[in-house]
Formats: sequence, C-alpha cells, structure tokens
Amino acid sequence: MQMYDLIQKTRRQEPLTADQIRFITEGFCDGSIPDYMMSAWLMAVCCQGLTPEETTALTLAMRDSGPVLDLSPIGAVTVDKHSTGGIGDKTTLLLAPIVAACGGCVPKMSGRGLGFTGGTIDKLESIPGFCTALSTERFMEITKEIGCCVISQSGGLVPADKKMYALRNLTATVDSIPLICSSIMSKKLALGADCILLDVKFGHGAFMKTPEDAAALATAMVEVGTLAGRRCRAVLTDMNAPLGCAVGNALEVAEVIRILRGELTGGLRTLSLSLAAHMLELSGHGSYDDCRKRAEEALTSGQALRKFAEMLAAQGGNPAVTEDLSLLPQARESLTVHAETAGWLCGLQSEEVGLACLALGAGRTASCAEIDYGAGVMLHAAVGDRIEAGAPLFTVYGDTVSRCEQAAARILAAAGLSDTPIEAPALLHQVIGS
Amino acid sequence: MQMYDLIQKTRRQEPLTADQIRFITEGFCDGSIPDYMMSAWLMAVCCQGLTPEETTALTLAMRDSGPVLDLSPIGAVTVDKHSTGGIGDKTTLLLAPIVAACGGCVPKMSGRGLGFTGGTIDKLESIPGFCTALSTERFMEITKEIGCCVISQSGGLVPADKKMYALRNLTATVDSIPLICSSIMSKKLALGADCILLDVKFGHGAFMKTPEDAAALATAMVEVGTLAGRRCRAVLTDMNAPLGCAVGNALEVAEVIRILRGELTGGLRTLSLSLAAHMLELSGHGSYDDCRKRAEEALTSGQALRKFAEMLAAQGGNPAVTEDLSLLPQARESLTVHAETAGWLCGLQSEEVGLACLALGAGRTASCAEIDYGAGVMLHAAVGDRIEAGAPLFTVYGDTVSRCEQAAARILAAAGLSDTPIEAPALLHQVIGS
Repeated sequence: MQMYDLIQKTRRQEPLTADQIRFITEGFCDGSIPDYMMSAWLMAVCCQGLTPEETTALTLAMRDSGPVLDLSPIGAVTVDKHSTGGIGDKTTLLLAPIVAACGGCVPKMSGRGLGFTGGTIDKLESIPGFCTALSTERFMEITKEIGCCVISQSGGLVPADKKMYALRNLTATVDSIPLICSSIMSKKLALGADCILLDVKFGHGAFMKTPEDAAALATAMVEVGTLAGRRCRAVLTDMNAPLGCAVGNALEVAEVIRILRGELTGGLRTLSLSLAAHMLELSGHGSYDDCRKRAEEALTSGQALRKFAEMLAAQGGNPAVTEDLSLLPQARESLTVHAETAGWLCGLQSEEVGLACLALGAGRTASCAEIDYGAGVMLHAAVGDRIEAGAPLFTVYGDTVSRCEQAAARILAAAGLSDTPIEAPALLHQVIGS
Repeated sequence: MQMYDLIQKTRRQEPLTADQIRFITEGFCDGSIPDYMMSAWLMAVCCQGLTPEETTALTLAMRDSGPVLDLSPIGAVTVDKHSTGGIGDKTTLLLAPIVAACGGCVPKMSGRGLGFTGGTIDKLESIPGFCTALSTERFMEITKEIGCCVISQSGGLVPADKKMYALRNLTATVDSIPLICSSIMSKKLALGADCILLDVKFGHGAFMKTPEDAAALATAMVEVGTLAGRRCRAVLTDMNAPLGCAVGNALEVAEVIRILRGELTGGLRTLSLSLAAHMLELSGHGSYDDCRKRAEEALTSGQALRKFAEMLAAQGGNPAVTEDLSLLPQARESLTVHAETAGWLCGLQSEEVGLACLALGAGRTASCAEIDYGAGVMLHAAVGDRIEAGAPLFTVYGDTVSRCEQAAARILAAAGLSDTPIEAPALLHQVIGS
C-alpha cells in the first residue's frame, strides 16, 4: 500500500477501504507517513469529502490509536453527551444530576475551554475543592454510586486526534465535516458510553454558522456512532445568543444551582429538560414524554439538586455552595449597564459576548493561561424580552473597573433592541437520529 | 501575511493577489513555509483550481526564483518550442534546422528523457561527438551564426519548480492544470525567447489523455505566456500512436536525417512543416501559408539538411552522419515481426511502445541510468496503412535476442489490425492562441 495512491484516490473521490484508512491513520501516528503527505490527504478530504463508511473507518482507526475505556464495571447502560461548544453552555452541569436523579447513568469526561467558548471542567473547578482529575477506577465507582461523575478528559486519549488536529490547525484543514466528525466521535467512542447524545450548536457563537451545516455534521456523527454500534442521537440547538443568563465560570455554576433550586426558569431550563429526556430515552428509561416528565419532577422535587450536592461531595467540592452561592469565587469589580431606550431585545451576538468574557479573564487565550473564575457577565434580559428605558440590561464582572468598562461596551454593541415585539427563538431546532 | 490564511483562501476559491502568491513561492523556496503547509496548498490548488491571473503570478514568481536568461545579444526575434512529451517525438531535431533555414532564430534548451518518453538531448547525444553542455555565451554565438542551437537545460534554472515538483511527486498533486502550466511556463519564460510554440500532446502516450484536457492546459499556457508579454501559441497533437516510424535515440536521428534528405514522407514530415510554419509566423516571418511554403522549400532544396549539418559541426558532432547513417550507434541484435494476417493498422498504443523501448534500454528508469543509443523500434507501417499477410510490421533493436523478443511481443500486443479500411488520423488537431 502506497500513501501516494491513497491520496490520489481521495483526490479523485474514489472511496478508500477501511484497511487503507487504518494504514493512513497508523502510519501518520508512527511517523512512517510524513506530515507533508498527511496534510495533502487532509486537504483532499476537505475538498472532496469522505463517504459515511470512510468517515466511520477513520473514526475507528483514530479511536484505536490509544486506550479505549471499558465502562462495564459500572454495570449499567451509560449515556454520554457532547456539545460542539457555545457561549454560556452549562447544560452538562444540569444534565448530569437530572439524569442521575431519574435513574440514568452519566460517566462524563469533559474538556477545558480554549478561546471564547467555555469548558465544563473550568466551570466545575470554580467550585472550591472540586477535583476533576480522578483515576478511572474512582470515576467509575462514583458513577456507579451516585449515577454521575464529571472528570477532565485524559491527555492520552486518542493520540491520533491530537496529532491530526495539530496538523489541521496549521494547514487550514479544520472545517471539514468528516474530519470534525471523526475527531469528536473517536473520542466519544474511546470513552466507551453505550449511548451518545450530540448537541450540535449553530449560529454566531458556534463553529457551524447555519442549521444546514449543523445538520450535516450531526447526520455524519449519528451515522458514525450508529455504524460503530452505539445508540446515538443529535439535537441542533441555537447559539446565536448566549445560553442562559450567565457567561463565566462561577457565574454559570451559580445559574445552574439557581435552576436546580427552582429559582430560575426560561430557555436554558427548558432545553436542559429536553436534553435530559433524550439522554434518558436513549439509555432505555422509557418514552421521551415519560422521561421529560420525570426530569421535570427531579427538578421541582429537589432530587436533582441533591444529586448535584452528592456529586460535589464525592469529588471533593464543597456541597454547601448549593445553599450559599457566596461561597463561589466573586469578581472584585462589577458594572451594570442599563437600557437607554425601551424596546424588545432582538439579538445578542454570542461570539461577541464570549470574546468580551475572554477579555475579562473568564477564558483562556493560551492553553496554559490562568482563569479568573469570578469574571463574566450576567444578562438581565433574554432575546424576545421587553425592556423599559432605564432597566438593567446586563452586569459585567472583572478585576478592574477599566476591564469591566471595555467589556460592557463590547457587549452593549452586540445587543440589538427592536421597536416591535420579537418572539424568543426556540433553542431546540431539530432532532436527528432514531 | 500568514500562510494559513492563504491556504484557506485557495481552499475557498477566493483568489490570491500576485504578492500573496509570491509570498508562498519565495517562502517555500527559502524554507520559511514548511513542506506540510505547501503540500496542503498544492492539494487545494489541485481541487479548487487557480484563476489565469493567479496562474500567471505563480509562473512569474517561480521564474524569478533563479536566473533569467537574456537572449538580446543574439540580436534577433527568438522562437522556442515546447512539447509536453510523447513517444517518437523528434520534431525539435527537424524544426530547429527548418526554421533556421527559413531565417528564423531557434535558441533551444531541451531536457533528457525519464521514463518512457524520450528526451531531445539524449537523441542528439547519440550522434558521435555532439556536445549539449555549452556555456550560455557559446550557445548564443552559435544561434546567432547558424540560426539554431540545442543544448541541455541548466540544472539551476527555476529552482522553485524543482522543489515544488519534488513535493508534488510525493503528494499526488502532479496532475493539475495550473501547476503543470506554471511548471512548464516558468521554465519557458526563464529561457527568455520572444515567441513560444507549445505542442500539447493528447492520447495514450501523453500526459493528457483527451483533446479536451490538452485544450484546457494549452489555453492556460497561452494565457500565461501572453499575460507575461510573450507571443504564444499552442497546437494540440495526437499521441495515440508513436510519432513517425522510429522510437529510440539513434533510430530517431536517422529518421530525421532521412526526412531532411527527402527520402521519407508521411505524418511526421507534414506535422513538422506545420509546426515550423507556426514558429516562423509567430516570430514575424510572414503569413502562415507563406511560412509553410518556405519551410517545404527548405526541406526539398536540402537547405534544412545543410543547417542540420552546420549545427552538428558547431556543437562538436560529426556532420558526416547526415551522409552516412551507419556512423550512428547500432544495436547488437534486431528482430523483425511480420503480419500473420492482412488488414489495416488501426491502432498502436504509444505508451506500450514507449515502455517496450524503455525495457530495451532506449530510455532511463532512473535519472542516472545509462542509455543504449542503438536500441528501439522501427515501425514499417503507420495507422491507416494496408498490410498484407507476411509483410514486415516492425523491427526491434536491442543488445540481446531475448530482450528483443520480449519487446516484440509487447509491441505486437499493442497493435490492432482491422478488416475494414481505416483513415489515418490527422496529427494536428487544433491551434490555440492568436
């Protein structure tokens, strides 16, 4: 087998066999296929695409480049969730306890944030004492006992993806559906859960800008997951505006706790209940409607809040934060911006909000950067809300007044007010997969 | 300027500026752009194409990566010819003396053969004493004095092309019209002739398999040549069967001399007269029809033969070969194959003939390999000819009987006989450019 011929085939849209794709993946990992050949092949994939069978073969070959987790000691049907990343997306923090409270089993490995999208692990680490670096054994024990556990993704997982991504990131071969799909799905498959719910974001603050692109990626991922023998479903969700009212690590944890305590309603709560119901249905806990009902009961009864506190305690975090939000890190300064005129909030560009929070210190500009857990923004209105002149629009939190002022200006510029009523957009746009 | 952004642009079919293309070319040559980025860009070019303006910018940037010849000391309008390569293509050996005999000026740098297509330089070097390695000064002197001179292309010419071709050859990015075009035209422009005739071959034994592909390449090359300020024209010629009756270095020289002596007519002679007329017209020697007439007179009067002898003498070759063909290298063994049945020769796959001659030692399998100048094949019939049972079809020449037998079997298998008359195909298919 010659790499030259395989590049030529992909360039000519002649499908490769699974063995040929494994040859490429293994050869690239062991260095026998040099970077300049791999980048030519990756570009050919970007331009000419891969079939679902080729994408699946690539995903499986990438999965097998490192250790594959065996979650069978947990002794239950496990369900994983993956989000393609957005601004204010703290759904994992809600879903894990809600699903666990309904009898589901959520062994979750998450990533840290880089750039303007936040990372679930950073959010959890804003809780005093919370530890996300557990052994696989302890991870499975907690999941078995409580029904959920969230740890940070092991660096050794899917080395092929790490190496390929580094090359793609230098050669403008990142935005390709088969390559994004195999990158995400190889990690999901290596994590070993029986069921996978994929939350594919679209809009301003998302990697996929349109519902059509998001649907194409979602379809590819569901196909690969299903061909690889997992129960797999995708939802397309709107990321034109930030999700929920908080953006920033401790601020988002506080929002999660307030929803779990029943103090907050709105789009994020509704979406989380739908996602929880999908995870429960996928993992065999009854019909979607039943699952949706039970998820809501878990919230209103306080069971989900108790699960969350149990998980915090099991992972070294202070469960008292669920009762006293002032135990969470607080920013030194804050600044509230008020509406100058009345109107309806018709847009709030999430990418801009994300970049403003990044500048406040809520995210990382480099992978080794320190995070200001208290920094971020609290939105006092959601898209579709009526706002009166002089009413508070949002509050920014940061370590200096001048950083707060700069962020406030940026967020204000990203908000649009309309003279006529606007309907709040449905966050859940489409479900893909059985 | 970031290479990443330029790769992205080409991938998205957003045209690059001339400065951006020069940045890529220079950066690749000086090593500041690594191979893996360049191969990604080259693959993006293969898949998404370049505009004529981008192709011209790439060609000029490549040309400027090394020395550019100044032919002005010759003091005449110079005309160059380039063939994309074929089997039995010895037209340069005929065109140089014919055009020179008609007052044209042909300073020609040619290449050696590699693989199954022959090189003009190898053919000339089969003439005892002939030297193709002259200084640029001596090259221009001879051209000025005689009207033609053929030397081997300097290795230092267009280093960008050398480096790019080496990478393309490893990454399946060879067959791309803008890349082939810039590779050929950067060298033609560096050689500095005022007028360029491009002979683009199509068919079995050619790089371009169809007239459509050949036309696309020819159009791109004429566009680039014209945008670069040269008088430029292309002809598409048929390479489904070998050109003329000889394939092999000394055998082809003998065929050229026999045409110059008026002993041979046929397709090669006709094609050469047309090409000579195009070269003369391009370089300002009157209308095509006038030039065609004068070219024919140069042949029939023996003037072109005398020019050829003069060129041989000036370059150290023995001019007596024009009178005594036995002074050319001869193969040790030969084998003539006769027709078993009668019919019309309807095809003779030139690639197969080329590969048979390569196996006989007439070509190089590696760039350092030695050539058997006497080896090759003489075809006794052309496509369209009536052949009687028992008539000689072809004779192979080689150093052992067994090599001759193997080559004969391969060539016989490549020949087709028809029961019904076949028309000989016109060799010159189309003219492109003003």
